[in-house]
Amino acid sequence: MTHIDLNSDVGESFGRWELGDDDAVLEVVTSANVACGFHAGDPSTLARTCRSALANGVRIGAQVSYRDLAGFGRRFVDATQIELTDDVVYQIGGLQAIARAAGGTVSYVKPHGALYNTAVHHDVHARAVVEAIAAVDPHLPVLGLPGSRLLEIARDRGIPTVREAFADRAYHSDGTLVSRREPGAVLDDPAVVAGRVMRMVSDGVVDSIDGDTIRIDVDSVCLHGDSPAAVAMAVATRELLTSEGIEITPFT
Amino acid sequence: MTHIDLNSDVGESFGRWELGDDDAVLEVVTSANVACGFHAGDPSTLARTCRSALANGVRIGAQVSYRDLAGFGRRFVDATQIELTDDVVYQIGGLQAIARAAGGTVSYVKPHGALYNTAVHHDVHARAVVEAIAAVDPHLPVLGLPGSRLLEIARDRGIPTVREAFADRAYHSDGTLVSRREPGAVLDDPAVVAGRVMRMVSDGVVDSIDGDTIRIDVDSVCLHGDSPAAVAMAVATRELLTSEGIEITPFT
Amino acid sequence: MTHIDLNSDVGESFGRWELGDDDAVLEVVTSANVACGFHAGDPSTLARTCRSALANGVRIGAQVSYRDLAGFGRRFVDATQIELTDDVVYQIGGLQAIARAAGGTVSYVKPHGALYNTAVHHDVHARAVVEAIAAVDPHLPVLGLPGSRLLEIARDRGIPTVREAFADRAYHSDGTLVSRREPGAVLDDPAVVAGRVMRMVSDGVVDSIDGDTIRIDVDSVCLHGDSPAAVAMAVATRELLTSEGIEITPFT
Amino acid sequence: MTHIDLNSDVGESFGRWELGDDDAVLEVVTSANVACGFHAGDPSTLARTCRSALANGVRIGAQVSYRDLAGFGRRFVDATQIELTDDVVYQIGGLQAIARAAGGTVSYVKPHGALYNTAVHHDVHARAVVEAIAAVDPHLPVLGLPGSRLLEIARDRGIPTVREAFADRAYHSDGTLVSRREPGAVLDDPAVVAGRVMRMVSDGVVDSIDGDTIRIDVDSVCLHGDSPAAVAMAVATRELLTSEGIEITPFT
Repeated sequence: MTHIDLNSDVGESFGRWELGDDDAVLEVVTSANVACGFHAGDPSTLARTCRSALANGVRIGAQVSYRDLAGFGRRFVDATQIELTDDVVYQIGGLQAIARAAGGTVSYVKPHGALYNTAVHHDVHARAVVEAIAAVDPHLPVLGLPGSRLLEIARDRGIPTVREAFADRAYHSDGTLVSRREPGAVLDDPAVVAGRVMRMVSDGVVDSIDGDTIRIDVDSVCLHGDSPAAVAMAVATRELLTSEGIEITPFT
Repeated sequence: MTHIDLNSDVGESFGRWELGDDDAVLEVVTSANVACGFHAGDPSTLARTCRSALANGVRIGAQVSYRDLAGFGRRFVDATQIELTDDVVYQIGGLQAIARAAGGTVSYVKPHGALYNTAVHHDVHARAVVEAIAAVDPHLPVLGLPGSRLLEIARDRGIPTVREAFADRAYHSDGTLVSRREPGAVLDDPAVVAGRVMRMVSDGVVDSIDGDTIRIDVDSVCLHGDSPAAVAMAVATRELLTSEGIEITPFT
Repeated sequence: MTHIDLNSDVGESFGRWELGDDDAVLEVVTSANVACGFHAGDPSTLARTCRSALANGVRIGAQVSYRDLAGFGRRFVDATQIELTDDVVYQIGGLQAIARAAGGTVSYVKPHGALYNTAVHHDVHARAVVEAIAAVDPHLPVLGLPGSRLLEIARDRGIPTVREAFADRAYHSDGTLVSRREPGAVLDDPAVVAGRVMRMVSDGVVDSIDGDTIRIDVDSVCLHGDSPAAVAMAVATRELLTSEGIEITPFT
Repeated sequence: MTHIDLNSDVGESFGRWELGDDDAVLEVVTSANVACGFHAGDPSTLARTCRSALANGVRIGAQVSYRDLAGFGRRFVDATQIELTDDVVYQIGGLQAIARAAGGTVSYVKPHGALYNTAVHHDVHARAVVEAIAAVDPHLPVLGLPGSRLLEIARDRGIPTVREAFADRAYHSDGTLVSRREPGAVLDDPAVVAGRVMRMVSDGVVDSIDGDTIRIDVDSVCLHGDSPAAVAMAVATRELLTSEGIEITPFT
């Protein structure tokens, strides 16, 4: 590959509480996963984030979640398919209006946190997300893990899919992510992280935590920005890719 | 006048809690003020309500509110103008996506409860609502009390305005509503209510609580449906109007 | 047995939304499972419910839940043990203060909805509830299903346990409840329900949905009151028990 | 005076969102105003904060608020007296249980943010807070502004009162605080702030923003800790007072 999309989670403040250096992140990425109010992101935060994304020429995506502010969307919630579909439709719509008021538009959907992880294997919740997108706008692509039920069901339903890799997360040899609760799950060395992403993009491979070199298909790489170290990793990654002639550009 | 719009608040259940006989109401009215999740209305309730409105040929409006589930939007919240504008934009957008998923669209905006009452006289909050509509879609009409700051500011901003009267509420001689906390504020006799609405529509007048006959300009009449008695009043009103040759049709 | 405790869920309104005929239920039962604000029950509802329980001489228990108003506590939430323990401690404390202000006290704890069902088999969440009770007051008994991990862990921890049966729910032959999503899970004939409870109390048995007669140990029977039919079943049950000489009295 | 109490707001994180350097603050103050969940403070945050306060020998107070997470309790909410009393009772109780689980107790009550400011002049809300304290435990002192309706009503009701001054806030000549929205309302020079507090404590006076020297009665001084600069001011204040022979000790 000679080009790649970089995405990051933004808009995750809530009222008085600030989280992440969105301005720094939005100078690095090409796609902004903006929270939609159910795990984070009061409407004024979303509005500021959309304006900042637009000012940086960054595309806006809807980062949809279980309804769980106290858990930041990181806890599985056993919603019914209908509840979850309607919750996702509502979240996309809320952000669409905010984006429109800022002069932009919502260009894709990415599930957040526990919903992202659950949609890898949980048919009902994967389908709930896909049906929500189909109901709102079937042309909106969905980001997910390669091989996830989410992307499989989306493909069957005619929804465009975007395969995502994580810059700073360890992988098992079967291509699944190592749980954050396990040691070594999260990488923190900017040079190491940048080098991994470079290999993912140029060679389509990554070293697993078990010592194997595994194949990884990637249309977009997720960077984090919720700490100074995370921003440093994001910057290092972008710089290495650019210096190696990889174009940083939105997925198509 | 030979025609009138009838509107009512619907979609005000929340999760396990049910409120109002929406199905009965949607057989009577021409405009449905659907809650948007901030005072009532989880997304699945909104979806059901939008489908029911569409099945009955009833137009969908966004009933926007302060963020206050515990107070059902009936308590003034001293939000800043920006907070309130963004909250209203988000609510309209959430309902727009739900309505679109149901095959419909949001056709107007009406503030709920304390926000409705506040926007009669409170410049900042009236302006916040108007700016939200202007940002989402300046062609969306806003419902409000004749003479309210809400309608004045909307008119100045180029937003279409719809003057509303209340079927079952007492009026002061200056055209303001008698507070629910005062005796006689809420009427409950179906024949009396129907007769009042008939006079509002045909003669443009209503008897105030102080004994005067006052002029009232009305494009839409608000009926309630949150009790069997309220539904009975709504039905009686529609029947009287129809029998007197008044066409029940959406405001234009 | 010549005596039995009857319990029911109360205080499950929230703000404008009313649920259940608490006044009717509090004339029937001896123990009131009062919601604690996380699945239902704003503080003013809790205060009214505590006053009503005290006026009827009914004991107050804390009905603790996952934090999930939108799901009415009926959805599993994958909280950590620490989060759940702290959530339960907080809920018990909130109700204790409300009960104290009403002149009463909290006498026991019962998990609600999904937390109740989860604590049957989920070690971490069962332990979280038990540790919360141990931290607040280890003399507070906990209600649960006989054979549940909740009651086993409580017993090991020195917390008093109360074995509960359900008047209107079908049982499998292994003593577990038939899921509400399966046909026949909920009974609705007052005479049938009353007769089942009579056999539970006098003979210690119940007929399972599979046609067996199974042993059931019961210190307290749960009645429902969230519909007129449910109240009718509760009344019929109390009347039959009383006419057969069973004393309706709080568990000890 | 030869001694003074120092208090600060702590426990104001919420789930994933962290706010304030509570550990640094708890090394400086003698009284910790711990949030109670309605403007900030999930139960696990409260539990950690209570344990930290106890480890530092700092007294725990209940920082009660309007129910408004999105507004951080900084927006007036027009609750009824009963709603507000019950909300305050519930909050105190929630924190009491959390404190008890940590081996401590709640020793006083302080309204937060908009409720604090409202209770200066708003009879109904001041009374609501006082009645809540009277219902939970009339021996719990309440912190407030000297001359506020809150302290007057508390005194009439037999609730102990504690007069509070603010280290980093400007005063009008009538003893009221300059609104945060006005220039000069918040001071940020550690030496200036420490010097002001020293004069308040030793001489009972402070310079108003209008250039007058006004009398100020103070039993406790509020320091802030939600920024590195705030912590620096708190440390400087404590050091100056101590070096001048003022004992830093809980109010009595």
